[in-house]
Amino acid sequence: MADKAQLQEAIKTQGEVVRKLKSEKASKEQIDEEVAKLLQLKAQLGGDEGKHVFVLKTAKGTRDYNPKQMAIREKVFSIIISCFKRHGAETIDTPVFELKETLTGKYGEDSKLIYDLKDQGGELLSLRYDLTVPFARYLALNKITNIKRYHIAKVYRRDNPAMTRGRYREFYQCDFDIAGQYDAMIPDAECLKIVYEILNELDLGDFRIKMAWEDVKKEMVNEKGLSEDVADRIGEYVSMQGGQDLAERLLQDPKLSQNKQAFAGLTDMKLLFSYLELFQVTDKVVFDLSLARGLDYYTGVIYEAILSQTIPASVSTPAEQNGADEAGVSVGSVAGGGRYDGLVGMFDPKGRKVPCVGVSIGIERIFSIMEQKTSSEKVRTTETQVLVASAQKNLLEERLKLTSELWNAGIKAEVLYKKNPKLLSQLQHCEETGIPLVAILGEQELKDGVVKLRNVASREEVDVPRADLVDEIKKRTL
Amino acid sequence: MADKAQLQEAIKTQGEVVRKLKSEKASKEQIDEEVAKLLQLKAQLGGDEGKHVFVLKTAKGTRDYNPKQMAIREKVFSIIISCFKRHGAETIDTPVFELKETLTGKYGEDSKLIYDLKDQGGELLSLRYDLTVPFARYLALNKITNIKRYHIAKVYRRDNPAMTRGRYREFYQCDFDIAGQYDAMIPDAECLKIVYEILNELDLGDFRIKMAWEDVKKEMVNEKGLSEDVADRIGEYVSMQGGQDLAERLLQDPKLSQNKQAFAGLTDMKLLFSYLELFQVTDKVVFDLSLARGLDYYTGVIYEAILSQTIPASVSTPAEQNGADEAGVSVGSVAGGGRYDGLVGMFDPKGRKVPCVGVSIGIERIFSIMEQKTSSEKVRTTETQVLVASAQKNLLEERLKLTSELWNAGIKAEVLYKKNPKLLSQLQHCEETGIPLVAILGEQELKDGVVKLRNVASREEVDVPRADLVDEIKKRTL
Repeated sequence: MADKAQLQEAIKTQGEVVRKLKSEKASKEQIDEEVAKLLQLKAQLGGDEGKHVFVLKTAKGTRDYNPKQMAIREKVFSIIISCFKRHGAETIDTPVFELKETLTGKYGEDSKLIYDLKDQGGELLSLRYDLTVPFARYLALNKITNIKRYHIAKVYRRDNPAMTRGRYREFYQCDFDIAGQYDAMIPDAECLKIVYEILNELDLGDFRIKMAWEDVKKEMVNEKGLSEDVADRIGEYVSMQGGQDLAERLLQDPKLSQNKQAFAGLTDMKLLFSYLELFQVTDKVVFDLSLARGLDYYTGVIYEAILSQTIPASVSTPAEQNGADEAGVSVGSVAGGGRYDGLVGMFDPKGRKVPCVGVSIGIERIFSIMEQKTSSEKVRTTETQVLVASAQKNLLEERLKLTSELWNAGIKAEVLYKKNPKLLSQLQHCEETGIPLVAILGEQELKDGVVKLRNVASREEVDVPRADLVDEIKKRTL
Repeated sequence: MADKAQLQEAIKTQGEVVRKLKSEKASKEQIDEEVAKLLQLKAQLGGDEGKHVFVLKTAKGTRDYNPKQMAIREKVFSIIISCFKRHGAETIDTPVFELKETLTGKYGEDSKLIYDLKDQGGELLSLRYDLTVPFARYLALNKITNIKRYHIAKVYRRDNPAMTRGRYREFYQCDFDIAGQYDAMIPDAECLKIVYEILNELDLGDFRIKMAWEDVKKEMVNEKGLSEDVADRIGEYVSMQGGQDLAERLLQDPKLSQNKQAFAGLTDMKLLFSYLELFQVTDKVVFDLSLARGLDYYTGVIYEAILSQTIPASVSTPAEQNGADEAGVSVGSVAGGGRYDGLVGMFDPKGRKVPCVGVSIGIERIFSIMEQKTSSEKVRTTETQVLVASAQKNLLEERLKLTSELWNAGIKAEVLYKKNPKLLSQLQHCEETGIPLVAILGEQELKDGVVKLRNVASREEVDVPRADLVDEIKKRTL
């Protein structure tokens, strides 16, 4: 802890930094960050009368999910997981941090974005940067040579957050990968089929899946001793988009097909496209040799799915809304992946390779879009079927007893935690949270052995014998 | 990076440490840790021909979940989440790290177990230690004064791992909390009802829920100027266990009931017990005033659920198995919680209080038990309904086409990624992974417009018209 005079000096300096940024109309994010530092300094000093002043915020680039956001998140996950399961995938989980050296040398330039843990004695650790490297480590550690698995978990990048566009420092990845030595292009085709199915089912509007070929591109772009004429032609190819016909055309170019690696790549491209035709997904897939993926580990086909429409800036939270004065941002890539046949071998002591191909769904961008789509809608955040209520006083015990009976019968039921709540406030709770039914108890109902079941929307009420209540609720909330 | 001579010296020293520990028959965990350090040093030096040697392991105290463990985890979560939803809970999520100062001063002695992130510029961050403090921060930040929410997520403690007993450095917490100003003891009773329901449904054997009262205990234990006679009597009370009668008996002791706080606490104890009777859970609940919870923030009722049986040491992973020579360990506490009325106010700039009560399910211990219970059983890790197969060559395209048709109809289907797999290996895949049906294609079936549907268990085969295949599979895999 710095001494008081030092702290006061630091607070003064930091205050000037904030004032300067404000006068320069710096970005909201930049100002927020400097204000946070100022508040932290003030907190160290202690507030009035020694009362500790907290900086009440989440860490930069991270966010809480409120119940409505969680409901949307669960809906999106459920669609995606159903698809993965339909394709026979298992799931695994790995720790949020790995030995630092496990991540070293896998991400090229981006390694500087890795979060390290403080050295508190023991091992040097880092937060995972993606799910692919931990997956490869898992395969090598457990000597697994084939698996089809999905993994949905958070990853961490010390990136410049752009939260209005769904870019965070803590965010979900949602990966499906097929590891194993198989006949060419069949698993690759299944990955693309999965992207197609998921984007269709999420109903996010039109999309395109763009594919390129790491090997072919390297050959085309890095070929040495190229005549000017050939170089021009290759430039033309790289900017071309197309389907199977493009693969065919490239194969017919002797310059390319004479090169062993390029020929193998082009043959695979053709084969992949024939499988995609069987899977009926070619209407959305194009070869686009200008495509590049940022990571070092890709070795074969690479792909990216892109939404066609431009969507308005996110309106997910008030804080973000204030910062978002762009009229609209392109959502861009919502899925990507490719083949990485060398990564597992980097972890194996004997360098044994396990060929892998996979896809990562850009779930945060999808959340952003879904949040906007539902921003004006009412989204239920509970599944409660019935509220146990009363219009009369002194019936708390009866309400608790009936609620307990319903819970024991598997009914989703709530009761207000008040001795004598007003009927109106009980009905209001239902309206606000979307509970469809109210089970009303009164002296008369207790005497008659019935419960008054009220439909919140229609206001209809009917007396139901207590023994039939569970069935009646189930029937009305199918 | 240290220079080569220094590294070689360090490796030599570390090698001696390992040999010494082995000769002293130190614990496996201790040896593993020192071996890991040795390997890390060797890795820094680089292996033969400059090839990098990886230390292939997960961080100390953490583990991967393999597909079988994930299947068990999902089953446990599904039971618990169903219960939370039955009680009308919403869910939220918070980031895995918080500003360091958010966690400061909440955990007493245990604060030394908090993982800090390295200072890479910007804010000082720590990994969350539990879900309760982030929940309180969330309420204060968003000015929420009432909510019933659950939160299932991983938390981090630099504790001494005892993985054979389900104690990890990264582990799940599974929390249910009710925040808000309500009539006394109703939310508290619901929390206990939830513990009761979950432990019943998980079918882990007999259990007891022990309750104590922070306020009452403080009064009883810290009361000044106590005569020896009264002190003795209080010692007796503290060691007593009982139900409503105990609360009654304590209330009748003038020494206690004359104290305002103790009287209020005892009155609440009585009230709580009456609600627990309405919820029909008193058969498992006892007051046990010797109970203590480790955390600073509890203010009222506290409780803990304990399994009655002793279970054998975990057999979850080979590494753990080797280290587990204890014949059997007590599983002990599998749930705990209590009332913490002051925590949210610690985050509010004006100190506004939001009363809270909650419960945390000890999910890792429950996983351990479930893993042992199923260690000899076959647990399915996929939900695949049918494998599309062929006994003849050159039918890959037909297999892919049919598989795609099934996926499009929502059937969970797999196909082997081989051009010409043997029928036997296709059937073996079904046996190994529990796929119940095989859809077999051959030249004859294609000509006749049928598919041979085979039941893997009974080996029965029947020709199904292709148009009826989806319905037939659905019917047979209900």
